[in-house]
Order: sequence, then structure tokens, then C-alpha cells
Amino acid sequence: MLTKATVKLVQSLGDKRSRKEHGLFVAEGPKTVSELPASKIKVKTLFATESWTLVNPGMLTNTEIVLVSEKELKQLSHLVTPNEVVALCEIPDVMMNEQDIRAGFTLALDTIQDPGNLGTIIRIADWYGIRNILCSPGCADVYGPKVLNASMGSFLRVSVFEVDLVEFFSGNPDLPVFGALLEGQSLYRVEFPDAGVLLVGNEGSGVSESLRRFISLPVFIPRRGAAESLNAAVAAGVICDAWARGRT
Amino acid sequence: MLTKATVKLVQSLGDKRSRKEHGLFVAEGPKTVSELPASKIKVKTLFATESWTLVNPGMLTNTEIVLVSEKELKQLSHLVTPNEVVALCEIPDVMMNEQDIRAGFTLALDTIQDPGNLGTIIRIADWYGIRNILCSPGCADVYGPKVLNASMGSFLRVSVFEVDLVEFFSGNPDLPVFGALLEGQSLYRVEFPDAGVLLVGNEGSGVSESLRRFISLPVFIPRRGAAESLNAAVAAGVICDAWARGRT
Repeated sequence: MLTKATVKLVQSLGDKRSRKEHGLFVAEGPKTVSELPASKIKVKTLFATESWTLVNPGMLTNTEIVLVSEKELKQLSHLVTPNEVVALCEIPDVMMNEQDIRAGFTLALDTIQDPGNLGTIIRIADWYGIRNILCSPGCADVYGPKVLNASMGSFLRVSVFEVDLVEFFSGNPDLPVFGALLEGQSLYRVEFPDAGVLLVGNEGSGVSESLRRFISLPVFIPRRGAAESLNAAVAAGVICDAWARGRT
Repeated sequence: MLTKATVKLVQSLGDKRSRKEHGLFVAEGPKTVSELPASKIKVKTLFATESWTLVNPGMLTNTEIVLVSEKELKQLSHLVTPNEVVALCEIPDVMMNEQDIRAGFTLALDTIQDPGNLGTIIRIADWYGIRNILCSPGCADVYGPKVLNASMGSFLRVSVFEVDLVEFFSGNPDLPVFGALLEGQSLYRVEFPDAGVLLVGNEGSGVSESLRRFISLPVFIPRRGAAESLNAAVAAGVICDAWARGRT
């Protein structure tokens, strides 16, 4: 049965502070929930409509399932259009593996504040097989509902770590750092290595002053028109594609 | 002076029906407003804080300027964070120039419903010097506040037309139509011509059945990871970049 206390708890998880306090977050919708069993995420409770349970009888057998009405689902959901199932999940405690990061291509995000952009970038990483994303503390919280929704389930396959980027770059001075800037080398001429970091700057102000000095390879996307810049996620996608192009 | 009737009118323009009825829309923020004089948009009234008028004394001299307080600006604005100036503008009556479209590279959007995606795609077109976008009637309305905001002023330089795409493609059978699909030719092997159309499908369901037959060159973005798809705007950006790469 759905208690008032549970509704209150799940609703509160729209807030980062509550997520931190409880160590919990909410994942929603049939697609994302169907991918939970294969992920490292532990589900505490599943709130599902009867129609969902009929179509998904065997899923998450060791998990408590609470049947809810459409009206109750709406109370629990953080989406504009709730979708059949809401999972209450534990925020995983994943340690950053610096060796793994040094061995692959990694995105470092400097204050990406828009949750939709962060989710879209996680989805880009998942598309191009990029396993790790480093977020500066000023980024949107990866477990926020809008981020998870925009990531379309990709947050289950890409590890996102909050790190002090100045510290990280200082500790890894030999790692090539590509910076998405408005000046530098044309993207079309860059030969990307297998391992390195692409540093993506804030939506409004770009890469912070304190991080610019770590960029060993400034890169720009050649412009043919008049827009001042590209959306941060689109720029990240275009550069990731250029990286992938060299190795596909 | 700001009247109640004006506030009500400007607020109503968040709604497509009201925009159609009055032939008006709202453009906001110093950056977009500063680009209005050079555009084909006619401004009816400018609602600005005193601080904005002090910094921009000569702008839009033939336009009625109504001084507003921060509180009044908030009433007029369609943004979460209002920003100094709101312009009440006339929706321009631009006729589609089929010759111009046939001579360049054009985006055709099939039911792009998310206003943020549409605005981001307009910005992409502006970045890559693509002058025209054709929208199916199911797309978000270009003069919606969220679309304009995401376009970052690029709607002033890119012409967006609502057209029946089946009709357009039927009437231009010789125009190469690239379709962003999950199967087809690898993007990295495509040689794009100067003129053609890139057809971008809906966020959830891709290119509609009724339009697929017009795709002469199905294109996919090679995937290295596990995400099912890329965000529609990101995919459009990656393909536009590949088109631009061949001619920069």
C-alpha cells in the first residue's frame, strides 16, 4: 500500500538535498526501468500500474512492488507525463577509477547547469561508447529527474563523477585535454588520440578561467553562419563524433 | 504606461492560438533585442527597465518604449528569469522561396515537438549557414517563447516555414533527401552535395512512414556504445557538421 510518508519521500527526491540526505533517487518510465536489472543500480521499491505489472511479470523479482493507480502515479512522478512505473533507487557509491579514465576518452564538464543538457551529454557519451564523465561541482546533479529523463536511460551505462577539475587536471598533467573553444585548431584537422579528455564549458560563459590553462589542444568547430555559439550538448556531440570518426 | 490590457495581451502570447489571432509574438532579453534592428522583424512596443534604456539609448528609435519596473517585467516575461527587456513583435509574413531552397542545404523537420530541440536546431542551422528550415505542421511553433529562447537569437537569421512535407517532396522529386535513420550509409562515407534536404525525424518515433519513401540517401551516425539513439538536435548537429566539413 502507498502511504502518505512514501509519497512525501518520493516527491522530496526532486530536490538534490533530499537525494543526498536519503541516498535515494527516482527513475521513471518502462524503458529506463527495464534497463535497471542489468545495471549496478539497486532498486528499493517499484511503484507500478497494474497494466505495467501484467506486461512485465518477471522483472525485478527481488524488489518490493507497490501497485498504484494512475492518480497515485501522478503524485509520485517528477515528469509532466507520468509513464506507468516509478522506481525508488539507491544512489550507487561508485569510486572513480583513475586508471580507467586515463585509458579512455572522457568528458569533463565545467558547470553544465541545464539538466536537459547534462542528460543529453550523458546520452551522447553512451552513444559513442565513452564510459566516464567528470562533472565540476557546479554542474546539475546527475540524479535530478530532468537529467535522468533527458539521458534516456544512458545514466545506467555511463559513470558520472563529481570532481574538482583543477585538482584532477593538476594530478594528470600528461593527459591530453581538448577544449571546446571559439578559437584554436579546426576540428576537421585534429587527430584525436584514443585516450584524452574533452573539456566542455558552461552554457553561457564557456570554459572557466581557472581551467583554461589545462587545455593542451584548443579546438573549434568551424562556423559558416552567424550564430555566436552552438548549444553545449550539440558542440559536445559534434566533437565526440569527430573523435569517433577517426576510429570507426 | 503599462496597462492591464497590455499585460494580458503579452501574457496570452505564450499561447500559439493567441499568437495566430493577433499576429504577434514576444522576443526577450538584451541579446535578442539588440539583434532585432538588423532583422526583418517589426517591433511594435519595447518594454524595458530603466537600466536597459540607459545602456541602449539609440536602439529602435522609431519604436514605442514603455519603461517598466522589475516587477512589471516579470509579469510580461515568459522566461523563468526575466532579463531587462521584452519586445512585442509582429510575426513576419515571409513567403517561402522555393528557388532559394532548391539552391542550398535545407533542414526538414518531421514533428519535432520539443520547443528546446526546435530552438537548438534553428541555432545549429544559423551556425552552419543553413538559411531555411521546413517544419511539418506537427512541429513546435517557432514563435513560442521556449523555442525563441533556445534559438539564442538565431530565429532572426534563419527562415522557418510550416509546410506539408509530403507535398514539398512530391513537388521536388529531383532534390536529394538525406534521412537521419538508424540504418543506411555511414555518415563518414557520405559525400554531401551543396544543395539538398536533411530530413530529421520526431524525437520518439523518428521519420514518419509517409515521409520515408522520399529519402533518397538514408544516413546513420555510427554508434560505438549502447544508447538507442541520439537526441534529435544533437543528431541534426552532427550531420550538419559532416555536411559543412566537406566545404570548409
